[in-house]
Amino acid sequence: MKAEIIAVGTELLLGQILNSNAQYLSQELASIGIDVYFQTVVGDNVNRLSHAITVASERSDLLIFTGGLGPTQDDLTKDAVAAVLGRSLHIDRIAMDNVDRFFQGRGTPMTENNRRQALVIDGGTPLPNETGLAVGNAIAENGKFYVLLPGPPSEMKPMYEKQAKPWIMQHVLTHEEPLYSKMLKFAGIGESGLETKLLDLVENQSDPTVAPYAKESEVTIRISTKARTEREAMEKLDKLEAEIGSRLPNHLYASEDVPIEKTIVDMMTERGLTLSAAESCTGGLLMQSITSIPGSATVFLGGIVCYSNAMKEKLLNVPHELLEGDDAPGAVSAETAKVLAEQVRMIADTDFGLSITGVAGPGYSERKPVGLVYIGISRRGGDTAVYELNLKGNRDTIRLRSAKTVLYHLWKQLKAEQTR
Amino acid sequence: MKAEIIAVGTELLLGQILNSNAQYLSQELASIGIDVYFQTVVGDNVNRLSHAITVASERSDLLIFTGGLGPTQDDLTKDAVAAVLGRSLHIDRIAMDNVDRFFQGRGTPMTENNRRQALVIDGGTPLPNETGLAVGNAIAENGKFYVLLPGPPSEMKPMYEKQAKPWIMQHVLTHEEPLYSKMLKFAGIGESGLETKLLDLVENQSDPTVAPYAKESEVTIRISTKARTEREAMEKLDKLEAEIGSRLPNHLYASEDVPIEKTIVDMMTERGLTLSAAESCTGGLLMQSITSIPGSATVFLGGIVCYSNAMKEKLLNVPHELLEGDDAPGAVSAETAKVLAEQVRMIADTDFGLSITGVAGPGYSERKPVGLVYIGISRRGGDTAVYELNLKGNRDTIRLRSAKTVLYHLWKQLKAEQTR
Repeated sequence: MKAEIIAVGTELLLGQILNSNAQYLSQELASIGIDVYFQTVVGDNVNRLSHAITVASERSDLLIFTGGLGPTQDDLTKDAVAAVLGRSLHIDRIAMDNVDRFFQGRGTPMTENNRRQALVIDGGTPLPNETGLAVGNAIAENGKFYVLLPGPPSEMKPMYEKQAKPWIMQHVLTHEEPLYSKMLKFAGIGESGLETKLLDLVENQSDPTVAPYAKESEVTIRISTKARTEREAMEKLDKLEAEIGSRLPNHLYASEDVPIEKTIVDMMTERGLTLSAAESCTGGLLMQSITSIPGSATVFLGGIVCYSNAMKEKLLNVPHELLEGDDAPGAVSAETAKVLAEQVRMIADTDFGLSITGVAGPGYSERKPVGLVYIGISRRGGDTAVYELNLKGNRDTIRLRSAKTVLYHLWKQLKAEQTR
Repeated sequence: MKAEIIAVGTELLLGQILNSNAQYLSQELASIGIDVYFQTVVGDNVNRLSHAITVASERSDLLIFTGGLGPTQDDLTKDAVAAVLGRSLHIDRIAMDNVDRFFQGRGTPMTENNRRQALVIDGGTPLPNETGLAVGNAIAENGKFYVLLPGPPSEMKPMYEKQAKPWIMQHVLTHEEPLYSKMLKFAGIGESGLETKLLDLVENQSDPTVAPYAKESEVTIRISTKARTEREAMEKLDKLEAEIGSRLPNHLYASEDVPIEKTIVDMMTERGLTLSAAESCTGGLLMQSITSIPGSATVFLGGIVCYSNAMKEKLLNVPHELLEGDDAPGAVSAETAKVLAEQVRMIADTDFGLSITGVAGPGYSERKPVGLVYIGISRRGGDTAVYELNLKGNRDTIRLRSAKTVLYHLWKQLKAEQTR
C-alpha cells in the first residue's frame, strides 16, 4: 500500500504557511502501518493540479488531498479529481443543509459560491465536516483510493480522525497488520558513528526495521515492526533495543522521543539531586534548555551568566590572576571552567555544578580559536571533571554543541553513579 | 522560471520532522522573483527518488533538493541526480579536506563512509558547507538547473544564503528584471493587528507588493518591486516603508530581516550602554537570545537565573517577606519583578537591568494562573517599569513571548530616549 499526500494551496508554495498537515497525516498513516511514499504540494491551478493527480495515480495507491475544498474559484481539488476520474459532481444534501444552517445562524445571506462547499464526486462517500463547511470525500476506483480533506488543520484533523481513518481502515486496510514503533535516542555520538556500529542491523534486518533519523544536534533511530498484537510487537522491539543498547551503552539514553534534558531531569528528580550552572559563551542556552523541561524546578535551582570577566570575578569568585595578565590561562581555559563549576555549585548549594566557557565566534577571543570550549562538571563531595572541546560550525552551532556536550557528560556521570 | 523544491528523507514521510526547509526556500525564492510551482517530498529510496527527479525535470526548470547528502547508505541524492543526468561523481578536494580536518580536530578516526560527504557531480559547482561536512552542488544542463543542499536547517540555510543564492542569481536569473525586496520587522503587535492597519496596502497595491511573511514569534512583511536599477527600486520601497512606518511608529523596529535583539544590541553599542538580566520562569531564554547576537559581549555583561526562591534571596537580595508568607506578594508579582530588575542592574553595574518572573506552566504556581508573567526594566538614574502580562499558550510559547515582550519594551524605551 503506497500512499501519497497532496497538499493544494498557493500559500504553501509562497512559504506563507508550513505544511503541518503533511506531517500530521504522515504520522497518522505510519501509526496504522501505511507507508507514505511521496508528499506533493501544488498551487491553486487546474492544469498543475491535474498533472499532480495523474502522476500520483500512477505511482501511488492511496491519494490523500488537503485543501482546495472551499467556496472560492481558487478551490479546485474536487473539480480536478472528478475530471481525472471522468466523474461529475453533485450537491450533497446533508452538507448543503449544514451550509444553510451556518448562514441562517449568522443571520447573513449566503453567497452563491458557498454552494461549492457542498459538492461531492458522484459515487464517492461524503465525509461530514463537524468544524467547518466544506464537505470531504472518499472514492475507491480500480484498487486506487482518493480521500479529499479540507486545508485548515482545525477542520482536517477531526475529519481525518472521525471520518477518513475509519473509511481507510475499512476499505483500504482490509488485510494488513498494524505497525508498532519505538524511538531510540543517542547522545555523544554522531550519525555516522552510530551507523557504523549498527550497520549490520540497518542493512540485514527486515523485521523489525531500523531507520536512522537526523535531528538537529540529536541522533535518533526508529525501530518498527508489524504484528497482530501490541504484546507480540513489543517483545520483538524490546529484544532489538537490548541488542542496540549492549553495543552503545554509553550513548543510548532513552527509548522514547525525548531530549537528553528530559532524561537528566527525570534521573535527578528520582534521586533527589540538584543542579546549577555558570555559563559564559553559551549565555544562558544551557540553563534555558534544562528549564524548558516541565518539572525541572525541583532539580535546577539557578545559575549565573558571566559574560564579562568582571562578572566572573564578582559573582563567581574567579581569581583575577586566572583571567588577566600575560601568563594567565584566561577566561577560556580549563582552570576557569573548573572554578566556575565549583563556585556555582557552592553558591547555589547544589549537588552538581556545570560550567561552559569558550569562543563561540565570530572572531577570536584571547587569541584562542573559534570553537575552543571548556566545560566543567563539579560534584558535591567529589571531583570536578573538565573537558576541552574543539567544535566546528557557526556561533549557534558551537553554542548548541557546547550545551549538548556538557549534558551528555552529566548524563554519563549520573548513569555511572546509578550502576555503582 | 518554474522552480520545484524536492526534500529527500524518509523521516519527512513518517512525519518525524516538519518540512520547514520547503517553507524557508519558498520564501527565499519568492523574494528574488522565482515562482515555486511544486514541492515534493520523497524517501531515501533510489527508484522513487529517480522517479521524482524525472517528473520534476519535465515540469520545472530549477530543481532545488534538500537532504540526502550525508555519509550513510540512505543518503542518495547525489547518486540519483548524477544517474538522471548521466554523469559521474568525484571527491571534491576542498570538501574532503574539510571532512579530514573535522575528524582530526575531534581526535576520532574518520569512518570510510564519511568520504561520501565530499562527493560532487562531474561538471557541477561545489557549494562549500560552512557549518557541516556534506558539500552541496549546483549544476546547469540544457536550460535546467539543479541545486543540491543538505537537510539540517543549520547547514542548509547558510549554504543557500552564501553559496546557492549567488549561484542562482548569476546562472538562473540572467535575463529577468531583478526583484528587489525589503523585510520590515515589527514587535509588540500581532499578525492580524498588523493586517488591519495595512489592509488597503496589502489589497490594492500591486507595485511594490506587500506580503506577510510567517515567522515564529515575529511579525514580518516583505515589500518587493521589480526595477531596472537598485536605485529606482529603493526609491519606491523607501517611500512605501515611510508610509508603513508612519502608521506603526511604535512597532516597526527594522527594515532588514533581523531579530529585535540585534536592533537592541546595535542601538546600545552605539550609545555605549550596558545590560544585565535576572530570569525566573524563562530560565535563561532571554539572556541566550541576547547573547546569540555576535558582538553582544560589549553590551550584555551577564545575569542570574534565579529559578528557586532561595536563589532569588541569596543572589538578588529579594526580601524573604516578599516571597513567602500568607500575605506576601510572592515570587510571581510586580514587587518581585521590580526588585529583580533593580538588583541585577546594581550587581552587574549596568545601565539597564531586565527581569522576568511568572508561571510558564504546566500547572499553577503560588495559586496563580499559567501565563501570568511580570517583567521589569530598571534604568540607571531612572525609574523601574513593571508590566503584567497575561499570556496564552504552552510552556514554550509563554516563555518565548515573555522574553520577546521585555525586549519590545526595552526597544521602545531606547527609542524614546534617542528622540529626546
